[in-house]
Amino acid sequence: MSDIDGRAVAKEIRAGVAAAAAKLRENGTAPTLAVVVPTDDEGTAWYVRSIKKAAEKEGVDCRIEQLDAPGRDEIVAKLQELSADPGVHGIICQTPLPEGVTLAEVGGHISPLKDIDGANATNLGRLGAGLRTWAPATAAAVLELLKHEEGLTLSGARAVVVGRSTVVGKPAALLLLNESATVTVCHSRTKDLAAVCREADVLVAAVGRAGMIGADFVKPGATVIDVGTNPTDDGGLVGDVDYAAVSGIAGRLTPVPGGVGPVTTALLLRHTVEAAELSKTHP
Amino acid sequence: MSDIDGRAVAKEIRAGVAAAAAKLRENGTAPTLAVVVPTDDEGTAWYVRSIKKAAEKEGVDCRIEQLDAPGRDEIVAKLQELSADPGVHGIICQTPLPEGVTLAEVGGHISPLKDIDGANATNLGRLGAGLRTWAPATAAAVLELLKHEEGLTLSGARAVVVGRSTVVGKPAALLLLNESATVTVCHSRTKDLAAVCREADVLVAAVGRAGMIGADFVKPGATVIDVGTNPTDDGGLVGDVDYAAVSGIAGRLTPVPGGVGPVTTALLLRHTVEAAELSKTHP
Repeated sequence: MSDIDGRAVAKEIRAGVAAAAAKLRENGTAPTLAVVVPTDDEGTAWYVRSIKKAAEKEGVDCRIEQLDAPGRDEIVAKLQELSADPGVHGIICQTPLPEGVTLAEVGGHISPLKDIDGANATNLGRLGAGLRTWAPATAAAVLELLKHEEGLTLSGARAVVVGRSTVVGKPAALLLLNESATVTVCHSRTKDLAAVCREADVLVAAVGRAGMIGADFVKPGATVIDVGTNPTDDGGLVGDVDYAAVSGIAGRLTPVPGGVGPVTTALLLRHTVEAAELSKTHP
Repeated sequence: MSDIDGRAVAKEIRAGVAAAAAKLRENGTAPTLAVVVPTDDEGTAWYVRSIKKAAEKEGVDCRIEQLDAPGRDEIVAKLQELSADPGVHGIICQTPLPEGVTLAEVGGHISPLKDIDGANATNLGRLGAGLRTWAPATAAAVLELLKHEEGLTLSGARAVVVGRSTVVGKPAALLLLNESATVTVCHSRTKDLAAVCREADVLVAAVGRAGMIGADFVKPGATVIDVGTNPTDDGGLVGDVDYAAVSGIAGRLTPVPGGVGPVTTALLLRHTVEAAELSKTHP
């Protein structure tokens, strides 16, 4: 079994980001990401700081727009304001959102041309229709990792995605379908989940339950991408995959941390410089 | 094996359309569908006339907007004009389109509030995000037929969709996923297609190849929805399913004609009256 090295892939992407950002700056544009933070959750704050640090390291400005116990209308107003601001190229609306507010609904107020984390349903539809767009960065990271693996062919492979969220499961499935995999989406209502997962040449776990994907879910030699980032009591992170059990069976497996996470952050930055480039032609 | 009676389902839907249309007319609104026809193809002309006839029978006005060998810009201009016309509630852009023009791209110029055949990618995304929208009528017809079947449970069922088009395969898969089926999408690159199809409790055939789905594609007792409408040499229609071979194996099967087709037409009308109702609150 070989570990899939997310940090190496992220490094490569970030080198490209740094070069693109430098070029934009030479031409008078400081690529800028705005992160709307509608929660004072400590985990979120930590994550947002890590994005800011990564952004600034590669030459992307990062504005954190902290909102204090906002209602739905305040979040929407902020997203509209940033969408209209020519100094902002990429916009993320961080979760968790207040009770009763969904990202699918407020995400519709992020300009599709700045929606670098695919929160606007328009961009999910464009993904499904094969039009140019940004997928949610986590889903895009799954594909980026798979495409970096030498000798792995997605066309005709059986891919199983566990989880049907709008931000990971569904867009990952659409991306895999665009690569001509035969794609199955599983979820909490799936019967005999382990057996369905064992059909997979490529298994994507995005359920949010620590260690749920055990040895009996994995076909020998399969490629397994673990999207889970479940906090542990001691302040660490574990994935949805039982790493110890699965590493003896899978052909390739992403570790947590060090797999999907760093690539997701790198792609948020790549998407932001792409949006900044786009703003020159679609101001 | 029992035939799934599309005509009976369509009749029920159309009764509801007639009642809703009458109520709209009482309140001064004539629900109106506009069909943009960018081709002089005879099959298309026949189909569009059949929609017009059905519409007018149920009290829905239908404007056929025939374009003569249009380019992409002319089609877009017509869709924009109709989107802005307060007298038009639903818009369909008929295919085939001219060489190099895709429905996914020009469909973006149909107002999402009038896009009653789900041609705007925004509406595909809204479907994926679980937001209120109209699915393409053919995909919606697949679900309507399944939901009408007594004793058929979609939640937890294994559904296999053969075909990954933006107008049928992908939206049908998203709709089945919203019903909590475990959904697999197959296509021309799928390996051992027959074996994958045999996993299905619910099999949806949308490939556009006459009789391609034979006996060995069907698990005994499965429910099979045949979306194919392939013209025969003698002017008739046959489905993607080999009816004679599969009828001895499937539990339920839609005939062609008389299955998905009439329900699709009925849903175009239902969506149009819904759009007319919506225009009162979102003018």
